[in-house]
Amino acid sequence: MSGNSIGRSLVFTSFGESHGPAIGGILDGCPPGIPLTEADLQPDLDRRAPGQSRHTTQRREPDQVRILSGVFEGLTTGTPIALLIENLDQRSKDYSEISQRFRPGHADYSYTMKYGQRDYRGGGRSSARETASRVAAGAVAKQVLKHLCGARVRGYLSQLGPLRPQALDWEQVHANPFFCGDASLVPELEDFMDALRKEGDSIGAEITVVAEGLPPGLGEPVFDRLDADIAHALMSINAVKGVEIGAGFASVSQKGSAHRDEMTPAGFLSNHAGGVIGGISTGQDIVARLALKPTSSIRLPGRTVDLNGQAVEIVTKGRHDPCVGIRATPIAEAMLALVLADHLLRHRGQNAGVKAPLEAVPAQASSEE
Amino acid sequence: MSGNSIGRSLVFTSFGESHGPAIGGILDGCPPGIPLTEADLQPDLDRRAPGQSRHTTQRREPDQVRILSGVFEGLTTGTPIALLIENLDQRSKDYSEISQRFRPGHADYSYTMKYGQRDYRGGGRSSARETASRVAAGAVAKQVLKHLCGARVRGYLSQLGPLRPQALDWEQVHANPFFCGDASLVPELEDFMDALRKEGDSIGAEITVVAEGLPPGLGEPVFDRLDADIAHALMSINAVKGVEIGAGFASVSQKGSAHRDEMTPAGFLSNHAGGVIGGISTGQDIVARLALKPTSSIRLPGRTVDLNGQAVEIVTKGRHDPCVGIRATPIAEAMLALVLADHLLRHRGQNAGVKAPLEAVPAQASSEE
Amino acid sequence: MSGNSIGRSLVFTSFGESHGPAIGGILDGCPPGIPLTEADLQPDLDRRAPGQSRHTTQRREPDQVRILSGVFEGLTTGTPIALLIENLDQRSKDYSEISQRFRPGHADYSYTMKYGQRDYRGGGRSSARETASRVAAGAVAKQVLKHLCGARVRGYLSQLGPLRPQALDWEQVHANPFFCGDASLVPELEDFMDALRKEGDSIGAEITVVAEGLPPGLGEPVFDRLDADIAHALMSINAVKGVEIGAGFASVSQKGSAHRDEMTPAGFLSNHAGGVIGGISTGQDIVARLALKPTSSIRLPGRTVDLNGQAVEIVTKGRHDPCVGIRATPIAEAMLALVLADHLLRHRGQNAGVKAPLEAVPAQASSEE
Amino acid sequence: MSGNSIGRSLVFTSFGESHGPAIGGILDGCPPGIPLTEADLQPDLDRRAPGQSRHTTQRREPDQVRILSGVFEGLTTGTPIALLIENLDQRSKDYSEISQRFRPGHADYSYTMKYGQRDYRGGGRSSARETASRVAAGAVAKQVLKHLCGARVRGYLSQLGPLRPQALDWEQVHANPFFCGDASLVPELEDFMDALRKEGDSIGAEITVVAEGLPPGLGEPVFDRLDADIAHALMSINAVKGVEIGAGFASVSQKGSAHRDEMTPAGFLSNHAGGVIGGISTGQDIVARLALKPTSSIRLPGRTVDLNGQAVEIVTKGRHDPCVGIRATPIAEAMLALVLADHLLRHRGQNAGVKAPLEAVPAQASSEE
Repeated sequence: MSGNSIGRSLVFTSFGESHGPAIGGILDGCPPGIPLTEADLQPDLDRRAPGQSRHTTQRREPDQVRILSGVFEGLTTGTPIALLIENLDQRSKDYSEISQRFRPGHADYSYTMKYGQRDYRGGGRSSARETASRVAAGAVAKQVLKHLCGARVRGYLSQLGPLRPQALDWEQVHANPFFCGDASLVPELEDFMDALRKEGDSIGAEITVVAEGLPPGLGEPVFDRLDADIAHALMSINAVKGVEIGAGFASVSQKGSAHRDEMTPAGFLSNHAGGVIGGISTGQDIVARLALKPTSSIRLPGRTVDLNGQAVEIVTKGRHDPCVGIRATPIAEAMLALVLADHLLRHRGQNAGVKAPLEAVPAQASSEE
Repeated sequence: MSGNSIGRSLVFTSFGESHGPAIGGILDGCPPGIPLTEADLQPDLDRRAPGQSRHTTQRREPDQVRILSGVFEGLTTGTPIALLIENLDQRSKDYSEISQRFRPGHADYSYTMKYGQRDYRGGGRSSARETASRVAAGAVAKQVLKHLCGARVRGYLSQLGPLRPQALDWEQVHANPFFCGDASLVPELEDFMDALRKEGDSIGAEITVVAEGLPPGLGEPVFDRLDADIAHALMSINAVKGVEIGAGFASVSQKGSAHRDEMTPAGFLSNHAGGVIGGISTGQDIVARLALKPTSSIRLPGRTVDLNGQAVEIVTKGRHDPCVGIRATPIAEAMLALVLADHLLRHRGQNAGVKAPLEAVPAQASSEE
Repeated sequence: MSGNSIGRSLVFTSFGESHGPAIGGILDGCPPGIPLTEADLQPDLDRRAPGQSRHTTQRREPDQVRILSGVFEGLTTGTPIALLIENLDQRSKDYSEISQRFRPGHADYSYTMKYGQRDYRGGGRSSARETASRVAAGAVAKQVLKHLCGARVRGYLSQLGPLRPQALDWEQVHANPFFCGDASLVPELEDFMDALRKEGDSIGAEITVVAEGLPPGLGEPVFDRLDADIAHALMSINAVKGVEIGAGFASVSQKGSAHRDEMTPAGFLSNHAGGVIGGISTGQDIVARLALKPTSSIRLPGRTVDLNGQAVEIVTKGRHDPCVGIRATPIAEAMLALVLADHLLRHRGQNAGVKAPLEAVPAQASSEE
Repeated sequence: MSGNSIGRSLVFTSFGESHGPAIGGILDGCPPGIPLTEADLQPDLDRRAPGQSRHTTQRREPDQVRILSGVFEGLTTGTPIALLIENLDQRSKDYSEISQRFRPGHADYSYTMKYGQRDYRGGGRSSARETASRVAAGAVAKQVLKHLCGARVRGYLSQLGPLRPQALDWEQVHANPFFCGDASLVPELEDFMDALRKEGDSIGAEITVVAEGLPPGLGEPVFDRLDADIAHALMSINAVKGVEIGAGFASVSQKGSAHRDEMTPAGFLSNHAGGVIGGISTGQDIVARLALKPTSSIRLPGRTVDLNGQAVEIVTKGRHDPCVGIRATPIAEAMLALVLADHLLRHRGQNAGVKAPLEAVPAQASSEE
């Protein structure tokens, strides 16, 4: 059944396989009058693009995005925005092994069991390549947030294997291939990844995304809570195995007196809630973290079965990311931006004209507190 | 905008406030011919009900559920199943403080900012009382899973504050008020909760839910992935701040050679995936964990603002759960069951008649491995 | 699969069978702050209620509606509004014939073929009784329209069998059991219905519904066009076989020069469009007509088959409407109101703040032109 | 708010403007294993294409469709099917008049009032050009129906202005540019259209679509009834002002004894229901009719207003269809096919394995009776 759309008011529908002619999608529900050109989308696509350092897959894709509809004279029209990205580097290779054997931990198996077949070229639909479409749509959502409420969405690498940044300098985040905000950690990251590549193994990572400048009131309890929709969107990214908001799993061992975010007229005194309480935004920064597993496409041999159900060994060759988390930051930003823009529009529909009895409490506490 | 429905093929829509005449909901899309009576639902409602031990709120609610439609002569008819639970113990109390001041960390504030007003009696719509409706609907979903594919959903407390069970004995889970599978830990849990109650503070908890016996193939990539929908459903539960599937956040520091679940004709050799790969079930146990924050309704005074935006101090009196996690197990089971039953029906619609080229690999590895 | 909800921003989900304990539904997405009490809903329910004249079924149902949630201190809160109507007059009768034989033209057959069984008591879910829930929800939608944009929805009988009113006096519409705006036709309608009842036959009817005071801009092309959603909502009413907007089927033989509604600064010069062009409201009156077939529950014997597929004859006894169209006017109003309120909220979400370059052209032309 | 998707299990999302680079859409939810190539889609696109006779717009578009995803080795994979049609003949013209003045009866006005602006080139999103995407998606839906249940969808012109075919020869339908099943009427149609073109006026039309070979049981009461969804889909086609199923508006003056379709073990004795009762298919032919208004783009001068709200006269030049109904047959077929394929999948999800107590009654009566 159809499951390739996300959002309710602002709906993104994605299409495309790793080695088909193109990938892309349709973003439906974008308000009219938002300034938009392809130049607004390309930077995020470039940030996600492969082959930009020796630490990611060497597949070469310019990921040039085209807007096919929904924009007229530099402004959105309110009609669907179609986004198209052609696949260029579909290096012909021998798929006989992957087509016959299942990579353990890879969607090869589950897709085959579900659909009875699959497009096995480069992972087909389950390839991380699909996320380029999300990044393009997310860049439009960022424009919506910027122009409708001045909000901004950013992300960074908060852990890679055993390595955790000890600082967050947003300038640094964009100055290294790891989206790491701690410059001092970059050499260690380089060494770790080089060693990993030699081993032929892969590693997990954690990404943190932050949204600043959102108004309070976004989120539709009890099921389409803002945090629930954020969890859905982030967990829908390839390789993600966990999502947390604010204090997240740390709140399991917290007491209420420590967790609750006290308020003063000058602002909140902390942000353990991560900007969402009762499923509704508070006006503080939205802070979410996601855990990405190590990719299953590694050079180390593993036990598996083939299409005949026979026990076989498999070794994955070809161009793969040893840490899919490295390129996941722009993808996570895109998914968060899509959810927030959708909820901004959802909220306006039901609540236009509604006035709260008091001024919003300032989001004083830093999102990292 | 409407946000009180969950599911696509099997849709549950919830209604009700803590101190209104009743709560309940409508479950639409249940297949016809499933045996169903109120007696199938009551046990789960009783497991969630308050006032069953000194460690939960002392509000007394029998939580008697009535089925108003969709069942004829003991079988579901395929038409909507309406579920009604009357609110009986709405002890009249003085709400003047809560109606004027915002409990820090409570949805009081975000609801007021969103809607410009709120039903402040006992938390209104944001009250955990709403979850009784979910448990009733989830019990129907459990019947659907049982009768259509023989699957079972169960859960247990996997952490409370600093205390972690070291064993899982399913018999024990139902033998103590904590849903703890480790009998030896129960006295410590009792002592911890007694001390906490004296302090007037609250504590967080972690719940683990497991689904056994599901077929492979459930989940609709790329957005309605099974894991993404599970994350959405579990994060939609009051006080949940984090969700993880399988290895979850532990996979951040894992290598691919350790994380991947190898397969042999005899079965999977591990289940770090938690039963979902590429957003599709593999046939192994589905294993998900959720982190619940400590409730914000505590007796210790806190700084906050009132309806005029003035700085005030607040102390929450009345009947509150010092650990909402204690009663969360049946709720988490219900949400997982709803997602799985929905996806079972979704999958059948598109894939009825589709045959995989090989037999499913047995789900040999234990879900706890 | 679930199909008992209608609307996107304002969603109504209906439940209930003719002879179950109750019928009702949940209206989700209603904006907060709308004045609402049960007294606002009862009048429309009374207009639909059976047994008010000898021309409708003699089943006696007070159709007392209760609001179970979503309203606090006389105002909607923005949370789901649950509506409950108990079934009181479930006269015990002998269903052996109806349970074994299919009334030709009745949903008996299609329900049984779809679900493999059915609740045959009084038609079960397919009974017109279900429409009482729609009328209650539609009355809430009328409040939304009234308070958010001052719009009003009204309807009348525009044909019954061969009889067509020649005038429309809104006062008269509510002064006779037929919702007929032409007082001079009422005696003929009485005689026609008396004769029909003697025959034991039934008759079709046409209803016209009109919405005044709507702003331009409602409707979401290309699929959720306002006219398409109106057609969906009206065709979803029991026994409806046709829907038209504005000139409708008459436009088949019109020329463009005659059909187009010319505009002047003083207003539109006609309303053949029925208030919708390109799927979007123009600000003129919305005018829609629906054709209702004659009910299939008649006393005249008919050929059919039984549960064993054998040829049998059937005669329907019991209390049935000889013209379901008579009571359909409040139902059609309710469905139109639900669609319009939903689209008003949908439009606001995407277009809040959007300004048209010119003032709206006045809706000068009468809706009946 | 997003409104460019249709369907629940099989969802089609459309994009594109008349004079943008391309139009197309994404069809999500198509079952895997359905044979599909571009050659299966092109014939329907060619039937709809403009410029094939002197009676339609002379815009020249090959309407070559490309499948960008969802098909592998000639079979659908179960992943989204992206369809792309490039716009080639975007003859540069002077839009100054249309951009400043509103064509009476045209979506110019309503789009501008809704979005505050519009892409005025060739009607932009409101252009009938958008329907080419629908035809491509509908052709896929026809494949789904053919391969899953052997059903077929066909249509024909049942009226053009005052002219009604007196016969239906399916061979003839495809032998003339009018989709007219009565060869003897074609010369009259030619003459009528020639005269109309000289006048510079336009005319309405009625199309009938028929689906044969569907199983009973499709449709999800009470709102997503099969007839309601058909009405929605057909009314969503440009210029459609009315939709009826089976006897439609004729049933207003029918008696129940005449309307009801009696059943015998040999089959139904008539089909006034048009194949749908209680919102569920009966297994008889689905028969629906739609009324198309005369296009508003005519050469005869008309009164309107300009962007400044001033009274002006307008004359539409350029290439326009004098009867949009002529090319509407393939579009109506496509929309019906999309609804039926969607409901076939929806039904399977909830009812897979459900057995009716008796064999289906044969659909003996002709769909034209």
